[in-house]
Amino acid sequence: MTAKIAILGASGYTGAELIRLISTHGGMEIAALGANSKAGLAMADVFPFLRHLDLPQLVTIDEIDWTGIDLCFCALPHKTSQEVISALPKTLKIVDLSADFRLRDPEAYAKWYGNAHGAVEMQGQAVYGLTEFYRDQIAAARLVAGTGCNAATGQFALRPLIEAGVIDLDHIILDLKCAVSGAGRSLKENLLHAELSEGTNAYAVGGTHRHLGEFDQEFSALAGRPVHIQFTPHLIPANRGILATAYVHGDPAAVHQALQQAYATETFIEVLPFGATPSTHDVRGSNFCHLGVTGDRIDGRAIVVAALDNLTKGSSGQALQNANLMLGLPETQGLMMAPLFP
Amino acid sequence: MTAKIAILGASGYTGAELIRLISTHGGMEIAALGANSKAGLAMADVFPFLRHLDLPQLVTIDEIDWTGIDLCFCALPHKTSQEVISALPKTLKIVDLSADFRLRDPEAYAKWYGNAHGAVEMQGQAVYGLTEFYRDQIAAARLVAGTGCNAATGQFALRPLIEAGVIDLDHIILDLKCAVSGAGRSLKENLLHAELSEGTNAYAVGGTHRHLGEFDQEFSALAGRPVHIQFTPHLIPANRGILATAYVHGDPAAVHQALQQAYATETFIEVLPFGATPSTHDVRGSNFCHLGVTGDRIDGRAIVVAALDNLTKGSSGQALQNANLMLGLPETQGLMMAPLFP
Amino acid sequence: MTAKIAILGASGYTGAELIRLISTHGGMEIAALGANSKAGLAMADVFPFLRHLDLPQLVTIDEIDWTGIDLCFCALPHKTSQEVISALPKTLKIVDLSADFRLRDPEAYAKWYGNAHGAVEMQGQAVYGLTEFYRDQIAAARLVAGTGCNAATGQFALRPLIEAGVIDLDHIILDLKCAVSGAGRSLKENLLHAELSEGTNAYAVGGTHRHLGEFDQEFSALAGRPVHIQFTPHLIPANRGILATAYVHGDPAAVHQALQQAYATETFIEVLPFGATPSTHDVRGSNFCHLGVTGDRIDGRAIVVAALDNLTKGSSGQALQNANLMLGLPETQGLMMAPLFP
Amino acid sequence: MTAKIAILGASGYTGAELIRLISTHGGMEIAALGANSKAGLAMADVFPFLRHLDLPQLVTIDEIDWTGIDLCFCALPHKTSQEVISALPKTLKIVDLSADFRLRDPEAYAKWYGNAHGAVEMQGQAVYGLTEFYRDQIAAARLVAGTGCNAATGQFALRPLIEAGVIDLDHIILDLKCAVSGAGRSLKENLLHAELSEGTNAYAVGGTHRHLGEFDQEFSALAGRPVHIQFTPHLIPANRGILATAYVHGDPAAVHQALQQAYATETFIEVLPFGATPSTHDVRGSNFCHLGVTGDRIDGRAIVVAALDNLTKGSSGQALQNANLMLGLPETQGLMMAPLFP
Repeated sequence: MTAKIAILGASGYTGAELIRLISTHGGMEIAALGANSKAGLAMADVFPFLRHLDLPQLVTIDEIDWTGIDLCFCALPHKTSQEVISALPKTLKIVDLSADFRLRDPEAYAKWYGNAHGAVEMQGQAVYGLTEFYRDQIAAARLVAGTGCNAATGQFALRPLIEAGVIDLDHIILDLKCAVSGAGRSLKENLLHAELSEGTNAYAVGGTHRHLGEFDQEFSALAGRPVHIQFTPHLIPANRGILATAYVHGDPAAVHQALQQAYATETFIEVLPFGATPSTHDVRGSNFCHLGVTGDRIDGRAIVVAALDNLTKGSSGQALQNANLMLGLPETQGLMMAPLFP
Repeated sequence: MTAKIAILGASGYTGAELIRLISTHGGMEIAALGANSKAGLAMADVFPFLRHLDLPQLVTIDEIDWTGIDLCFCALPHKTSQEVISALPKTLKIVDLSADFRLRDPEAYAKWYGNAHGAVEMQGQAVYGLTEFYRDQIAAARLVAGTGCNAATGQFALRPLIEAGVIDLDHIILDLKCAVSGAGRSLKENLLHAELSEGTNAYAVGGTHRHLGEFDQEFSALAGRPVHIQFTPHLIPANRGILATAYVHGDPAAVHQALQQAYATETFIEVLPFGATPSTHDVRGSNFCHLGVTGDRIDGRAIVVAALDNLTKGSSGQALQNANLMLGLPETQGLMMAPLFP
Repeated sequence: MTAKIAILGASGYTGAELIRLISTHGGMEIAALGANSKAGLAMADVFPFLRHLDLPQLVTIDEIDWTGIDLCFCALPHKTSQEVISALPKTLKIVDLSADFRLRDPEAYAKWYGNAHGAVEMQGQAVYGLTEFYRDQIAAARLVAGTGCNAATGQFALRPLIEAGVIDLDHIILDLKCAVSGAGRSLKENLLHAELSEGTNAYAVGGTHRHLGEFDQEFSALAGRPVHIQFTPHLIPANRGILATAYVHGDPAAVHQALQQAYATETFIEVLPFGATPSTHDVRGSNFCHLGVTGDRIDGRAIVVAALDNLTKGSSGQALQNANLMLGLPETQGLMMAPLFP
Repeated sequence: MTAKIAILGASGYTGAELIRLISTHGGMEIAALGANSKAGLAMADVFPFLRHLDLPQLVTIDEIDWTGIDLCFCALPHKTSQEVISALPKTLKIVDLSADFRLRDPEAYAKWYGNAHGAVEMQGQAVYGLTEFYRDQIAAARLVAGTGCNAATGQFALRPLIEAGVIDLDHIILDLKCAVSGAGRSLKENLLHAELSEGTNAYAVGGTHRHLGEFDQEFSALAGRPVHIQFTPHLIPANRGILATAYVHGDPAAVHQALQQAYATETFIEVLPFGATPSTHDVRGSNFCHLGVTGDRIDGRAIVVAALDNLTKGSSGQALQNANLMLGLPETQGLMMAPLFP
């Protein structure tokens, strides 16, 4: 069986990454590509790296005939996504890559995104798309909300520690280093090569980054009490990759053990030997996440470092992993490619 | 059927790239990994990006049991390669990625490499590994010599033009821009990030680069007369990719047509519409080669630009493509992954 | 004496580079900074790297009081420049960094820029700003037209060869590798870090780049007959630097000698020993231009490689060098900083 | 008056950076350049970017005639430095850029560097070279020990906070992002462009980095009690720049005020407005350090971000600033160049 797929927002990086992955998946056929602003163009003109593929032309979302389409990936901007999704056929399975359905609570959504949610009833039904922790619900869901890429990285490092009760919930600091493709194909001065390469800076400092909404929701639910971490992202001069350095209070050996146990049977999560630290170089272009634990010279403190590719495991790879589950396909299908190094 | 494979020189970039490609090939099993200087190590320690794979430990070449092995990729340094290969079992199929068997003429070899060849009789038997042009001979060969990555790029641009007789053989200039992985994992000051990034320079200027031996051999054979091109490579601050800009005297439309005809049925060679120019960004990590033709404002002159990934189509991808042919497998097996962008 | 200076277009890269250079010049005071789109902002907000300086606020051009200002650098976009400059006080000395006054012939201007010139009488009076070749005229000029950065690089390599009659005028090929800051602070997808880094491509292939207008004008005037070179620029993933590789027909020793003689007394032009090749790494952030000559293996052909920093020697450094001459200051004042390496 | 200067270790990055700075200093003359491994070479061959300068040839240290030399910069590797310095003429002023004299306590030195100090009596006399905090002692010193570049960055962010008593001394976390030139011109696989670019990783995780010896010494002395911070450096794909993100417990406004007061009259330390965050892009190639303070969403926690250029303010610029003081020259002489952007 080959599932018929549509991708909305195909002219952005996560849309293009989905096409890259699906092109060697073997069980999916791309039936429609939506991209309002570039409708009418051939994909080879928008992304020449895909020119070897036989792909449908870009069309407006209205032009898509949904008959026979099994699943839709929605890689549209935040806010547009909820409007579009609420108008899609009710029988269609949907994996949303935007932020619109990540937060279950309308008030939390309004607080972090600055506007009332436009599809509150769907918001409640959406399943949070962190595959390794919501696998069964995702398999049964109609609408899955892909996580933030930073949010995914931080959760892979911290969820098992909170669940196992091995760290102090009031002293969690997450310092992230993010590659630029996470910002999407946006035309901003600070994303120009001339201004981004050769240096680094922090942004959204002090607890203002929207992915904190996801951390708060997920960590508090896990702990059964409010958990508020500190989280500061930094932009680094690379295209793919997130490195999350988590500073926690807890026994380093217990921290390492909690991660090993949590991910013992997971295909995509690699817990390194104690004391080893991961690198984004080693996960580039792949669906793998590497985790390392080190003890600090100060007793009772541990450092957990997580590395993944924001466009793959942090976004489009995760989306495909979820789609596999929703379509009854093997979860890892199309996702076993090795990282690209160097 | 699964072919059993050995890789010699597994601790270098082309060796690692072979493992990356074979890991999702589906018809090959890696039975042995040789790497004398790092023998005894696990591959995950040498290249952590491969740690998700279940690979044999690195061993010395002497330790390898060749029983049952169908094909050996030899990714050793130049000169070492000929010594090792001449001592391998005579029944083993071999794809050599070094320069040792590219030149058929012992004198040409001695001239470009500065020493007498150590396995002259094998040198004569080796088939030149530019798949698209030596397909049948490769399928029947015991020993295939992978081409130089620059040599491959230039030939994809120029061979059909020489064959079709549409350019002046005395005025061919090839200006190459090469990413750094072509230099291998060598510890040299000019390959350090601090000295290579953020700038560019020419090297081997004036006709001294060894890949000229391949151009001379191949172009002269094609033309039936000596052909000597001008060729200057430049090092650019990128890890993968070669962009070759060829300046030729000839009718641009005829040049474009010659390329289109030559590659009409080729899976991996994409000839862009007339006037479009390729980018190394669009072939990164893939086995594709993009070719573009533009006419100059000066009548009767054309510019051909070729782009490929030096580690994939220029080296390990080419090697796998050849191995597929030698083993009776579909030529494109394991090589259809899309480029990585951005 | 301290000269009072105004800079129009201070929110772009060449404007900011002028401020960088003037900040340690010692003989200039910045009296006004014009930048219509960002008028009202402090320079520290537009370019935080200049925050240690005590600079005037950005204003609209109309707001500038020209009383007492000795010289104006005009770093505005093409076409805007001619409109603004024709309305400036007639007593003001002007160094224009745009393309508007580079071509002396209105028809040539219209051909390359696609519109009739709006200040034809000033066009005829402007002196072409390639300091080393127009020194006396620049010192006496009211309006100096800064050259194109690619045009400067190519001319440093080729003018002495044409003048000395040591090369064939019908076989000149110039292959340029340009860093991205030459494109200015423009918001375009192909200038984003995610799309520009890690690769390279040709652009304006086939003789369509506007700097060809300058090459045609200057080389034809030098030769006393029409000279049309082939010129193809390539974008490389670096912020500063142009490397020009010129392929010429001529005796390599004569070519080298012609360059050595032409630049024997020049402070900023370094001719390397025969056979050495320059690198953009070695001129970054400086006003120096390095030139190297190598003979090809084909008799009678030489390769000249030129390297300079497009923002400094190719643009703002050149502008300051010219302003020094126009103001009767030592030509090298404020320009002797060493390159930044690594 | 022109001071006569020698530089030992002139073939490394900090040595070359000293020459870059001194070339436009105006009050120093380079009389001797020592570099044992490259003795006999011209500086233009070792670092072509300095070829416009008239510099003495590289010699072995033994060959240097110390007569008339006022001050020696010692940019040699750790451990070599103490041997060489203890044998230099006793009248010579010395600025050491190695780690050898940073730690005053022989036991602390032995603990962090793994060997007994070879010049214990000089170790006690050396003045710690963090100019803004040891100005008077430096002016009077014979031997000044340049600080670690990471150690300088962290101290600029934290010293005033410890001195003012506005932060909790038991909860200081310093997460650094370091460019690669800090590792020097070392030939290691992980410093190759192919392995370092396009990604990031932590190193010396868990309190093992040697610069912790400096933090411990300085912060404990300031506080009058032992202070042990957590410190994790990360390698980012850039050549120059350190960004330090400090997570502290304390009132953000008080933290900002403490920094503003401490640096109110300092030329090179810029405290940004509250809530603004610095970027390494904005200090590149300069002697400036930018500091920013933001409050976290969690009450009572602040984030301080510091940015400087490791080779300039973090090393050779600091050394020159100290040398100016030791020679009775204006402290800022030769150090007022603006950063290089973009």
